[in-house]
Amino acid sequence: SNRTEILADGTRDYNPKQMAIREKVFNTIISCFKRHGAETIDTPVFELKETLTGKYGEDSKLIYDLKDQGGELLSLRYDLTVPFARYLAMNKITNIKRYHIAKVYRRDNPAMTRGRYREFYQCDFDIAGQYDAMIPDAECLKIVHEILSELQLGEFCIKVNDRRILDGMFAVCGVPDEKFRTICSTVDKLDKMSWEDVKKEMVNEKGLSEEAADQIGEYVSMRGGMDLAERLLQDQKMCQNKQACAGLSDIKLLFSYLQLFQVTDKVVFDLSLARGLDYYTGVIYEAVLTQAGLPPLANDSQNGASSEESAGVGSVAGGGRYDGLVGMFDPKGRKVPCVGVSIGIERIFSIMEQKAEASAEKVRTTEVQVMVASAQKNLLEERLRLVTELWSAGIKAEVMYKKNPKLLSQLQHCEEGGVPLVAILGEQELKDGVVKLRVVSTREEVDISRADLIAEIKRRTSEA
Amino acid sequence: SNRTEILADGTRDYNPKQMAIREKVFNTIISCFKRHGAETIDTPVFELKETLTGKYGEDSKLIYDLKDQGGELLSLRYDLTVPFARYLAMNKITNIKRYHIAKVYRRDNPAMTRGRYREFYQCDFDIAGQYDAMIPDAECLKIVHEILSELQLGEFCIKVNDRRILDGMFAVCGVPDEKFRTICSTVDKLDKMSWEDVKKEMVNEKGLSEEAADQIGEYVSMRGGMDLAERLLQDQKMCQNKQACAGLSDIKLLFSYLQLFQVTDKVVFDLSLARGLDYYTGVIYEAVLTQAGLPPLANDSQNGASSEESAGVGSVAGGGRYDGLVGMFDPKGRKVPCVGVSIGIERIFSIMEQKAEASAEKVRTTEVQVMVASAQKNLLEERLRLVTELWSAGIKAEVMYKKNPKLLSQLQHCEEGGVPLVAILGEQELKDGVVKLRVVSTREEVDISRADLIAEIKRRTSEA
Repeated sequence: SNRTEILADGTRDYNPKQMAIREKVFNTIISCFKRHGAETIDTPVFELKETLTGKYGEDSKLIYDLKDQGGELLSLRYDLTVPFARYLAMNKITNIKRYHIAKVYRRDNPAMTRGRYREFYQCDFDIAGQYDAMIPDAECLKIVHEILSELQLGEFCIKVNDRRILDGMFAVCGVPDEKFRTICSTVDKLDKMSWEDVKKEMVNEKGLSEEAADQIGEYVSMRGGMDLAERLLQDQKMCQNKQACAGLSDIKLLFSYLQLFQVTDKVVFDLSLARGLDYYTGVIYEAVLTQAGLPPLANDSQNGASSEESAGVGSVAGGGRYDGLVGMFDPKGRKVPCVGVSIGIERIFSIMEQKAEASAEKVRTTEVQVMVASAQKNLLEERLRLVTELWSAGIKAEVMYKKNPKLLSQLQHCEEGGVPLVAILGEQELKDGVVKLRVVSTREEVDISRADLIAEIKRRTSEA
Repeated sequence: SNRTEILADGTRDYNPKQMAIREKVFNTIISCFKRHGAETIDTPVFELKETLTGKYGEDSKLIYDLKDQGGELLSLRYDLTVPFARYLAMNKITNIKRYHIAKVYRRDNPAMTRGRYREFYQCDFDIAGQYDAMIPDAECLKIVHEILSELQLGEFCIKVNDRRILDGMFAVCGVPDEKFRTICSTVDKLDKMSWEDVKKEMVNEKGLSEEAADQIGEYVSMRGGMDLAERLLQDQKMCQNKQACAGLSDIKLLFSYLQLFQVTDKVVFDLSLARGLDYYTGVIYEAVLTQAGLPPLANDSQNGASSEESAGVGSVAGGGRYDGLVGMFDPKGRKVPCVGVSIGIERIFSIMEQKAEASAEKVRTTEVQVMVASAQKNLLEERLRLVTELWSAGIKAEVMYKKNPKLLSQLQHCEEGGVPLVAILGEQELKDGVVKLRVVSTREEVDISRADLIAEIKRRTSEA
C-alpha cells in the first residue's frame, strides 16, 4: 500500500490515539517501578559494535549496524541489558536498582518480517548488587505480577526455572557438555512444538541419543511449585548434580519469598522453560498470557528475548539472573551480580488497543478542559484575551485559529475531541461581564461571571 | 579516558540524577504542550534515506546512514520536522496540533565534535492546517515564552523575522536571486561575527557588491517591535517589494496577537535573524538566553536548527513556518501549511544540572516514601510481609536485600537517598502489633499501630 512505501520495513508510527494508550500503559509500569524504589537511566540508541559482539549468540545476525562513514563501527542496541551492563562497568557501579524504558532494534530475518516490528519498546527493571540469594529475584517476579494484574490483561502465568537446573538435568541425562546450549535451544521450542517434534530435532538434527532425549522428556514435562523442587532434590539422578541441587534449593527459597509477596497463585516451576540468551546464569522466568481470545501474535520473540528462544504464544515478559555480563566489560573482569526482567510492551499495546476499540468509551488524545468560542463575528481578540487568562491559571484550553469560526464547528470540535466545556463569548456576555459556560455532554448552558470562571472550570473538570 | 572508550563518540549516558532533572524539565514542557491542547505522536528512529534527502541542504552530510545489510537504505532521523511532514502526507492529515519529544541524530563534523552531542533530544510543537494568518504562529511564540519562564532559566529574548522579509530585503538591496540562500547563511552568522567580518565574507567570498552589502548592513542592524514593521512598510525601497510587504504586514498582525497573549516583553523583531534550514517559508524565530553567567556552550547548533545556522550563544528554541514541506511527500503535491517550534533541551538540561549542583537541595533519584527496616536478626520474613502490605496500598517502599542488614546501613541508605521515613520492626514491635516509624530528618521515632500505619505514612508523605 501507499502507506508503507514511505516507511522503513518493520517500523511504524504511533498516532495520537495509540500514544494515549501507550502513555497509560507506561504510567502503570513506571508507577510500579517507582513503587519498588527504582531509579532510571538512559543510554544511547547506538553502541560501539564491539560492545554488542559476542553477547547474543546466533542472534547477532539481527543486529543493525550503522554505515561506516569514517570513524567508529556502531550498532543499534539490541536490548537494554547489554548497555546496562556496559554502563555499570564503565562507571564502576556495584549497586543499583534501575528501570529503563526505550526502543530496541532487531533486523529480523526478512522471511520473518511480516507483522513483526524491527523497532520496539522494552521496559526493563534490574537489580545489580551482591545480595542474599533470591531476594531481588523474588522482587522481579513480584513486579511482573503487579504490572500484569494492574493492566488487566486477563489470566497469566509466570514460569520459573534455573539455568543450573537445566544444565544439571542435561548432565544427568547424558548430554555431552558441548551440546548443552544447542539442546537447550531445542527444549526452548516446547511451547511451540510437540514433544515428539522436539525429540526428533534433538535426535536427528542435533545427534543426541534417543535414551538421553527420553530422559530429558521426562523431566521437561514436570511443572509444580515448591513441592516439585523438594521432590527433585530427592530425585536419584538430580541430587547427584551439584549445580542442579544449588538451583533447586534456590527455587525452594524463591518460592518461600514469593509466598510472602503473595504471588504464588501465578508462578509455576516449569522445567521446560529454557530461554535462549547466553548470558543467563541462574533463575530464569517468563510471563505468559493464558486467557483465550487473545489477538493473533505479531511479535512473540521480542519480549526481552532473542528470536531463537520461543517466548510462547502469549509471552509478555521475561528475564533472569545474569551474574557474568558486567564482568565482560570490566578491564579486570570484576563481576556484578544482576537480575532483571523485561516487559514486552508491543503485545500489551495491541491488547489494550483492541480493548479500547471494543469499549464504548472514547479514547481522548488531548486533555483540553475548555474551548473558548464565540457565536458572533469579530471576537477573535476577546477569545485570545480569555484563553490567555485561562492558560495563566493552568487551565488546558484552546481556541480555533480562525477569525470568525462558526459556533457549530467549534462545538463539533469539542464533541469529537471529548472537550467537556465550552466558554462562549458574545457581545451581550462581554457587556454583562460573564461567559456562557456550556457543558458539551448535556448541552446545558449557564452564565458565569468572569471573576468566577476559573474556579468554576476547575470545579467542573476536577477528577474526583 | 577509560570512560569514553566504550561509548560511541558524541553520545552519553544519563545517570539517575540527570534523569531526575530531565524528567522535571520534560514535565514542565509536556504540561505546557498539553495546556495548549496538543496531541502527541511518535515516529521511528530511522526513515528511508530518500525521505531525508534534499531537505537539509548542505547539512545532509551530517545524516547517519545505516549499513546496507540487504534491504532498504535507511537513515537516522535528523530532526522531528521532516518525519512529521512525512507522517502527515502518508496519513493524509490536514489538521493537527501535535508535540513530539524524541532523540535526533547528527554526525557532526569530527572537528566540531568536542562537547557537541551527536544524539540529542528535541521537543517539538507544531500546528498543521489552513488557518487565518499568524494565529497559530503567535501561539508557538506564546508556548516558548511560557516554557522558558516556567523553567526559570533567567532572562531571555525571542527574536522574530520572516523569510519573505529577508528575501525582499535581499532583492531591494540588489542581491542576485541565486545568491539569496548563501547570503542568508552569512547574515545568519551575525550573532557570532561582527558586521565587518560578515560584510567581508559577503563581498570577498560570496562576490556581492560592496554597495549591496552596505545596504544589507543597514537593514540587519534594525530591531524593534510592531513600530519597526510599520516603519519598514513606509520604507521607500522595502515597500516596493511585494514579498517584503506581505511579511511586514504579518509581523504587524503577529505582534497584535502577541500583545493579547501578553508576551511582547520578550519578543523582538530582528532583521538579522536568518536561520539556515531551507524549508522555512514565512515567520522564523529563535529564543536566546541573555543572562550573564551561563555555562559555556557545548551544543549551540542543535536547537531545531542545522549546524550551518548560528543558533546564537544561548539559543534554546527555534522554529518557523514551513508551508511547502508536507507537499514534498504527497504524490499530488498537496500542501499542508505548518508552523512549529523546537525546544533544544540539552542546553536547558545542562543549566538545570548546574543549578541543581549549586543548590543546597539534594536531587532525589527515587520517590521511596519509606524503608522497611529492622534492628534485629531473623526478621527478613516480617520485613517482606510488611513491605508487601505497603506496596498493595500504593506506598513506595523498599527493603534491603539482605537477611540481616545492620540498622545503621539501612538508615544510611535512607539518608543518602532522601527517603523520609523508616518503618522499623523488632520482636517487641511485632508482639505489640506496632511499627516504630522514624523520621529520617529529625530522628524522631513514634510507635504506630499496624492498622494505622498506611494512613500515617500517607499523611506524613503527602505533598501539601
